[in-house]
Amino acid sequence: MSAEIAVIMGSKSDLPSLKGAFDTLKKFGLAFEARVLSAHRTPDAAAEYAKSAESRGIKIILCAAGMAAHLGGVIAAHTTLPVIGIPMASEPFHGWDALLAMVQMPPGIPVATVTAGPAGAKNAALLAVAILALSNPELAQKLKEFRAAQTRQVEEADAAVQAEIAKL
Amino acid sequence: MSAEIAVIMGSKSDLPSLKGAFDTLKKFGLAFEARVLSAHRTPDAAAEYAKSAESRGIKIILCAAGMAAHLGGVIAAHTTLPVIGIPMASEPFHGWDALLAMVQMPPGIPVATVTAGPAGAKNAALLAVAILALSNPELAQKLKEFRAAQTRQVEEADAAVQAEIAKL
Amino acid sequence: MSAEIAVIMGSKSDLPSLKGAFDTLKKFGLAFEARVLSAHRTPDAAAEYAKSAESRGIKIILCAAGMAAHLGGVIAAHTTLPVIGIPMASEPFHGWDALLAMVQMPPGIPVATVTAGPAGAKNAALLAVAILALSNPELAQKLKEFRAAQTRQVEEADAAVQAEIAKL
Amino acid sequence: MSAEIAVIMGSKSDLPSLKGAFDTLKKFGLAFEARVLSAHRTPDAAAEYAKSAESRGIKIILCAAGMAAHLGGVIAAHTTLPVIGIPMASEPFHGWDALLAMVQMPPGIPVATVTAGPAGAKNAALLAVAILALSNPELAQKLKEFRAAQTRQVEEADAAVQAEIAKL
Amino acid sequence: MSAEIAVIMGSKSDLPSLKGAFDTLKKFGLAFEARVLSAHRTPDAAAEYAKSAESRGIKIILCAAGMAAHLGGVIAAHTTLPVIGIPMASEPFHGWDALLAMVQMPPGIPVATVTAGPAGAKNAALLAVAILALSNPELAQKLKEFRAAQTRQVEEADAAVQAEIAKL
Amino acid sequence: MSAEIAVIMGSKSDLPSLKGAFDTLKKFGLAFEARVLSAHRTPDAAAEYAKSAESRGIKIILCAAGMAAHLGGVIAAHTTLPVIGIPMASEPFHGWDALLAMVQMPPGIPVATVTAGPAGAKNAALLAVAILALSNPELAQKLKEFRAAQTRQVEEADAAVQAEIAKL
Amino acid sequence: MSAEIAVIMGSKSDLPSLKGAFDTLKKFGLAFEARVLSAHRTPDAAAEYAKSAESRGIKIILCAAGMAAHLGGVIAAHTTLPVIGIPMASEPFHGWDALLAMVQMPPGIPVATVTAGPAGAKNAALLAVAILALSNPELAQKLKEFRAAQTRQVEEADAAVQAEIAKL
Amino acid sequence: MSAEIAVIMGSKSDLPSLKGAFDTLKKFGLAFEARVLSAHRTPDAAAEYAKSAESRGIKIILCAAGMAAHLGGVIAAHTTLPVIGIPMASEPFHGWDALLAMVQMPPGIPVATVTAGPAGAKNAALLAVAILALSNPELAQKLKEFRAAQTRQVEEADAAVQAEIAKL
Repeated sequence: MSAEIAVIMGSKSDLPSLKGAFDTLKKFGLAFEARVLSAHRTPDAAAEYAKSAESRGIKIILCAAGMAAHLGGVIAAHTTLPVIGIPMASEPFHGWDALLAMVQMPPGIPVATVTAGPAGAKNAALLAVAILALSNPELAQKLKEFRAAQTRQVEEADAAVQAEIAKL
Repeated sequence: MSAEIAVIMGSKSDLPSLKGAFDTLKKFGLAFEARVLSAHRTPDAAAEYAKSAESRGIKIILCAAGMAAHLGGVIAAHTTLPVIGIPMASEPFHGWDALLAMVQMPPGIPVATVTAGPAGAKNAALLAVAILALSNPELAQKLKEFRAAQTRQVEEADAAVQAEIAKL
Repeated sequence: MSAEIAVIMGSKSDLPSLKGAFDTLKKFGLAFEARVLSAHRTPDAAAEYAKSAESRGIKIILCAAGMAAHLGGVIAAHTTLPVIGIPMASEPFHGWDALLAMVQMPPGIPVATVTAGPAGAKNAALLAVAILALSNPELAQKLKEFRAAQTRQVEEADAAVQAEIAKL
Repeated sequence: MSAEIAVIMGSKSDLPSLKGAFDTLKKFGLAFEARVLSAHRTPDAAAEYAKSAESRGIKIILCAAGMAAHLGGVIAAHTTLPVIGIPMASEPFHGWDALLAMVQMPPGIPVATVTAGPAGAKNAALLAVAILALSNPELAQKLKEFRAAQTRQVEEADAAVQAEIAKL
Repeated sequence: MSAEIAVIMGSKSDLPSLKGAFDTLKKFGLAFEARVLSAHRTPDAAAEYAKSAESRGIKIILCAAGMAAHLGGVIAAHTTLPVIGIPMASEPFHGWDALLAMVQMPPGIPVATVTAGPAGAKNAALLAVAILALSNPELAQKLKEFRAAQTRQVEEADAAVQAEIAKL
Repeated sequence: MSAEIAVIMGSKSDLPSLKGAFDTLKKFGLAFEARVLSAHRTPDAAAEYAKSAESRGIKIILCAAGMAAHLGGVIAAHTTLPVIGIPMASEPFHGWDALLAMVQMPPGIPVATVTAGPAGAKNAALLAVAILALSNPELAQKLKEFRAAQTRQVEEADAAVQAEIAKL
Repeated sequence: MSAEIAVIMGSKSDLPSLKGAFDTLKKFGLAFEARVLSAHRTPDAAAEYAKSAESRGIKIILCAAGMAAHLGGVIAAHTTLPVIGIPMASEPFHGWDALLAMVQMPPGIPVATVTAGPAGAKNAALLAVAILALSNPELAQKLKEFRAAQTRQVEEADAAVQAEIAKL
Repeated sequence: MSAEIAVIMGSKSDLPSLKGAFDTLKKFGLAFEARVLSAHRTPDAAAEYAKSAESRGIKIILCAAGMAAHLGGVIAAHTTLPVIGIPMASEPFHGWDALLAMVQMPPGIPVATVTAGPAGAKNAALLAVAILALSNPELAQKLKEFRAAQTRQVEEADAAVQAEIAKL
């Protein structure tokens, strides 16, 4: 199965932080490819990747980057595919730089930005699932089941906490 | 033509700030509906709206709100459709509150957040176009043309600035 | 004794941070219930809980949540009971997101927000005590005694520091 | 009717920003008194006021202050009544100073902080109403009616926006 | 020798952070007293202390506090002696709350605020020395010698670094 | 009468913002001199001024500057006199830059920083008065009278507000 | 004379804010070219411009952009010439976004960032002058004269302020 | 070979953070000198150093400092050489103070500020290389080779990640 989703990171060191995205995409049975492409150190490769992504079957591109996180914007500038940005936290500014560098795109070229930090990778994948589900009823059904399971997990946590508190 | 896109605002006073979204959606010939739904003052209507949106043919929901901007999260909690958040700036914190209340969704329920302030409305609409274009080749073509036109506008501005500077 | 106070948390992982609330409520002999309810993952349960809380005898609801902390606002939207918000700190934004998402409620639906971080749980419980004490003279007396004891603790710390410094 | 609610401001210049509080309290038929008491310029009067408030029949104290907004903390230090803080925005830090100086009370003495800026005054009054309503069924009923009316206003705004958008 | 300088802290837990102040005052041979006084938990003792400080021979009061750090303002409200504020850093806001709650005193009652964090304690003591030195030529001379020694320490560090780099 | 107080500003454009300082110093009958000295554009003059200030009879130096406000630190580096910093607000960062560049002096060289913005000039002058009052009983008495008058002004404002609210 | 300096802006609307750069470059007799190139809307033109700049004789590139200000980073990615970034302030985040998106470049590709806001344009030009002056003694001399004139302006302002204050 | 580049730090404790600068300069075969000079504790030495740097053959000065990081500004005030600022992160404000104190230089005296934190030292050195390369073709060639090698490293990381993901 050819990948419909690309997960791009600005540095190999971002890989562990993206586990939530990979796990989620696999859970939904979505093929993805992962790449290290730097907006600044491999700008031509990044541009080329973005320009050819659509013709290679990619539908959505997730971009994870930290600091002056230009990766999402650079990719979005070269494709009309939806681009999802995941702000990575780094020292010393704890992701404030990445969040602003991603979400504050000027008018004309949006980047769909999700939660900064660890929660962002999972949420980016879920957003990609929701987008693909628009034209994939089976995936839409899986997403509804995921949500229901997620709800049940909170209900179980709720029961556990109630039991724990009752013992106080 | 039934609306595929919903533009929800937390307050009627957000309407002027959303002009960029309405103009953009119309330019792409996309039918949309606009609603005032408050996460806090009409929570049942907001939940009901979100729950029934998919069955009514809505595919993407844009949510504009300011301050403790819960609207995107509340809508996203009740639907699996993609939700796009537009942080509105307001006194005294100039949109920092809305940005964080929108983008920092916990893992499990993403909100695709775009630029805070006036540029956000246009970018939210363009993101919606990009998502719908994934399964609509005609719309994809229009988006490419929009981008090309946008590029030409910058080229014209470039020419104008070069001429102006040459006169200095 | 039926609970008059509810302590709601957005995630089971918030439980340890709430120890100060539980300890304080027990010290004042106030029955409470604790629940995990997520504004986003169990929105219907959260809404239902809020709607039925008053009829079940709950008088005050404490809500602890982090990130885009909507829990307080969602609960407050469905009840007229006083809602107290405790912003939880999390990575990478150290509670700035939770503070703003809680305190900046738009006009019409307030959330009484207390200190972000560990001190918040205790302060939320003390605020609940102060509210209930308005119609409970015995509790009011206990609160005055708690305050007096708290004052004495600072006085003892003062004496200890004076002794320690005298030795320098 | 003797006042159950006090509205204290740190400076006479805060008076216009508190209109939302006065209007709301009057709408609910609640007697209130308003005072200018400065944590720094009239500290003895502020302490004396706080100490005697309960015996004079005051049940809740609203404190509005800007900058290093100590008023709420100073009042709360001298009474066990619930204290509600309204952070006022001022130049050059737009209320960030007042918000933090109010909400970040150390453990032991809470201040129930509401929205910074204009929305805060109204929300502080509504929080006071919710607290008093706990032991005043008539007031509780009025609060429910206020909420219902507030919901209807949003519904009317919703209808107006739908009509306006339909004309586009 | 009776103390001319008071070092007040809002909590006994601040004591270790104040070592730089104690060491500096001792180095200059200045008698000081140290107290734990809480703006919120022992407000009467704090006010009483401030009111009587001048008559007891105190000339300068250093106030260290964290979070909504009112201690400096409360002390300054009750004395005309110079008050120096040391913002203590604490979780989760790392001293931003204490800095703003100290430095942003409204017009009429200043607090001389120094560096937040560990450097602040030493700097507060040095500021006190500089103030007392205005009317104490011997102390003024000592301060000049301290500065000269401090300069020499940097010069030695400079020599060490030059030697270390030369080996690279 | 020779000046004991110097008011230095980094730019002539700061002059109007310093009116509160000049008025206050005059009210207390204190001679002062005012200078424009730039840490960056006239660094030698600034250093020379600081070095010679004490010998010319200056006792306290007020430094007002905006942006990367180094003026206070540069002056303090060249004198052992107390230096008071007034952070000026400017576009686009509204004084956050000036506040941090002034207050966060490294250990060894303090700058006594007061309120950012308009209130700072008056507070800097009052801090200078408090310092000089330590060895000037007449000035100390004037400061106590100023405070009492200031208290009375708040009391009058209090009376005015009570009267105004009674009419509502 | 062929241009050695390029001034690039992300939008024609940045032109007025760059007047300080143009004026300064002209004052030093430096030929420059000015272009509108958008990192996002004309990414190929921007890359092409950066790649060919050196061969066309450009030595330094000034980049002014606001919001998620990627322009400096995108240009720097495609050239080894020094790139100077000028963060433009815009609503609602007043240049915080542009500052972080410019200065926080990841290791490997620096952008020399100067003052955000109006002062930045002039400072960027002066930085370019200082760089070119390293191999241009005549320019170096002009820069020293500029500095001396600048010093004299402050001295004149100093004299004017002294005269004005003497009249008080 | 006489040093053309100076690396100045405000404190010996900054030395480890500057390793990236030293390594990079050595990699490019550039002679440098390193000094500890404090804007506040050795202001005369710092001024003297800056004034004489050019005549001693220094062409570019890198300044690393934390907190109220005046070092860059102080050096820049006394030389017309290009000054590059590296904001050091320190407790409790994580480099926000150093960034603003460095980059926000008022008009007339620029400091070329690079990334705050560890990445800054390397980027400052690379910026210095780029500046010197303008008049040194051999160095320019080395910089191009460094960039190409850097690009290859990202390509290798890209290949490694693709292989790793393929195994999932």
